[in-house]
Amino acid sequence: MTFERMWADIAPVGRSASSQGYFRQPYTSAEMELRSWFAEECARRGLELERDGNGNLVAWWGSGDDAVLTGSHLDSVLDGGAYDGPLGVVSSLAAVDVLTERGFHPRRPIAIGVFADEEGSRYGLGCLGSQLATGLTTPDQARALRDRGGRPLEEVMADAGLEPALGRSAWLDRVGCYVELHVEQGRNLIDRDAAVGVASGIWPHGRWRFDFDGEANHAGATRMEDRRDPMLTFAMTALAADEEARRTGQRATFGRIEATPNGTNAVPSRVAAWLDARCENDAMLGDLVATLEKRAGERAGLDRTSVTVTAESLSAAVDFDPDLAARIAAPGGWPIIPTQAGHDAGILSTAGIPTAMLFVRNPTGISHSPEEHAEMADCLAGVEALADTLAELAR
Amino acid sequence: MTFERMWADIAPVGRSASSQGYFRQPYTSAEMELRSWFAEECARRGLELERDGNGNLVAWWGSGDDAVLTGSHLDSVLDGGAYDGPLGVVSSLAAVDVLTERGFHPRRPIAIGVFADEEGSRYGLGCLGSQLATGLTTPDQARALRDRGGRPLEEVMADAGLEPALGRSAWLDRVGCYVELHVEQGRNLIDRDAAVGVASGIWPHGRWRFDFDGEANHAGATRMEDRRDPMLTFAMTALAADEEARRTGQRATFGRIEATPNGTNAVPSRVAAWLDARCENDAMLGDLVATLEKRAGERAGLDRTSVTVTAESLSAAVDFDPDLAARIAAPGGWPIIPTQAGHDAGILSTAGIPTAMLFVRNPTGISHSPEEHAEMADCLAGVEALADTLAELAR
Repeated sequence: MTFERMWADIAPVGRSASSQGYFRQPYTSAEMELRSWFAEECARRGLELERDGNGNLVAWWGSGDDAVLTGSHLDSVLDGGAYDGPLGVVSSLAAVDVLTERGFHPRRPIAIGVFADEEGSRYGLGCLGSQLATGLTTPDQARALRDRGGRPLEEVMADAGLEPALGRSAWLDRVGCYVELHVEQGRNLIDRDAAVGVASGIWPHGRWRFDFDGEANHAGATRMEDRRDPMLTFAMTALAADEEARRTGQRATFGRIEATPNGTNAVPSRVAAWLDARCENDAMLGDLVATLEKRAGERAGLDRTSVTVTAESLSAAVDFDPDLAARIAAPGGWPIIPTQAGHDAGILSTAGIPTAMLFVRNPTGISHSPEEHAEMADCLAGVEALADTLAELAR
Repeated sequence: MTFERMWADIAPVGRSASSQGYFRQPYTSAEMELRSWFAEECARRGLELERDGNGNLVAWWGSGDDAVLTGSHLDSVLDGGAYDGPLGVVSSLAAVDVLTERGFHPRRPIAIGVFADEEGSRYGLGCLGSQLATGLTTPDQARALRDRGGRPLEEVMADAGLEPALGRSAWLDRVGCYVELHVEQGRNLIDRDAAVGVASGIWPHGRWRFDFDGEANHAGATRMEDRRDPMLTFAMTALAADEEARRTGQRATFGRIEATPNGTNAVPSRVAAWLDARCENDAMLGDLVATLEKRAGERAGLDRTSVTVTAESLSAAVDFDPDLAARIAAPGGWPIIPTQAGHDAGILSTAGIPTAMLFVRNPTGISHSPEEHAEMADCLAGVEALADTLAELAR
């Protein structure tokens, strides 16, 4: 099957020899190599490749409107897994091959999308490509973003040889529905003993930057009682995030931190840390973040530091089209499960496009890590399920 | 007085326009510019400049042995203050000018040392230049060090145009005693209402790297109870360090932290953090670090993470020569005070050279920060006190 060949082709791209994890940040050489690979695979199948000004790629099988769009993304988090994103893209190409072998002729066009910067690992805003394509993020909002090196999006895109033209994408008007296949990032399919599942919706989630400000000072000569150490305020807040998320059955993480000046023998002047929080519903998410801001502020009073909380992104709850989900799940008897992870599917759904997601079982339950995995048999079951879905929708 | 002119000359070098703090890391262009400036000031006074293979500079007034050495360092911590280091170097040059104006002819040679990499901001080991000069650190130990960019010391020195030849320095045999003037980094002189003080000794201190290892995972899709999050183990350890140091009246700081992969939407696989700890005596320091290692390990058990503690440097307690201190303090009636900060004076004392330190009052009590300060009148009082000391010792 073509899936195995394609999977082997891209396996080395952007892989770290030390961690075995992937570094496929948007517009880096590794990610650009995957884009070229995708263009070649499309040419090989006679799919017409469209490049929009937001960094997204859309490959067309057939012409006209009301298309059935599938696809995913090729970028990764820092030191991520092989499956998150590329599994959906490779499965989409393989599903087209399955349909061709079956002699299937789509009545509606079928398209494969590769969305730019899904992980938000470069600009701190997830799904940047689909956000721009749908207009949910404006060009001016995107232009205000900077990567860790201080560089704006359009400059980075142009340096990578692209021609940026940010704003709503014309291809969106040709899309009738969207189906994204993705590796599962939790344990629902392990618990249900199923190779494939269908998503009911996405938990609301967001990112908040916490700036803890104190006073730089000598780590040896300054009495403990004379300090205003923001690392302590951060530490209590990180423990509070864990405690509150456990208590309420939700999710809260501080995975990114930057201390200033970050010297061993200096009390920091500032600690910036990013909260990732996700909850069952919008109200619970609001409550969780408000509780953490309150607890951080209380500790800041004790530490004589201050804390400023800035929402960097916020994605409301997404309920996927229930009829579409039922129609996809029924033939294979696949379970319908929720997800806590953001996806381009959430963006397209929010933009009013009937959307569904297929998940492939991940036996480690681990994602955003080199440990992320999917068995080949499950991947091939995913390709068959996606091919069946596309055939059902495009016939 | 020449002090003001010299102080104004070096004020812009390596200063950040945003923080007003100094970035004078060893062998950077800013620090190299200060070395050139020092060489010019020596030439202007007819002092003979000696460059050793460890990056140290020694300027000689007079020939022969049993010299009275003074001086300090020109490098800074990241975003440090103007005074820590340069105050001692500029005051030494100004003290030579005072003695010259007084028509003083030293019977013993007077020398001014500029020690390399005192802060340890580049290689994580404080006083690297004096450590190598005295043999307390061996060339092989120094060669094993890497800066944050992964570069070894000799390569960095050679790139800066120096000729590295690591190992014990010949000039050390010509030194009879050492007196270092330094800005105070605590509040002893504020509390005692004195412009100048004399050091009794240095608290034992060291740096320990804490590696907290867990498991990278998706920040949204992973249930709290399925995580092994090393950020939580770090957070509890940072709070424990503050708590234990307060309880025992000692000092403990986590000012430097590096999370891996440091992404907002990933549970970290590893958090490395550096403990700076300082205590009244060696036994208390050992107890403090052991207590923190134990508490970190207990929390790691709860978090299903692990913790590894590596001593990166350890400086035993230093008692300066009490006779020398009394002789220096008596004429001006200066108070004798302890310090918690490491200095090249501690290294030379440990190497068997009778050593003393003069402190100049810091009205903010803050150091290793742009807030570090000394009033000009106090600086000039420091120059006079140093000139008197050199005259007393070299006559």
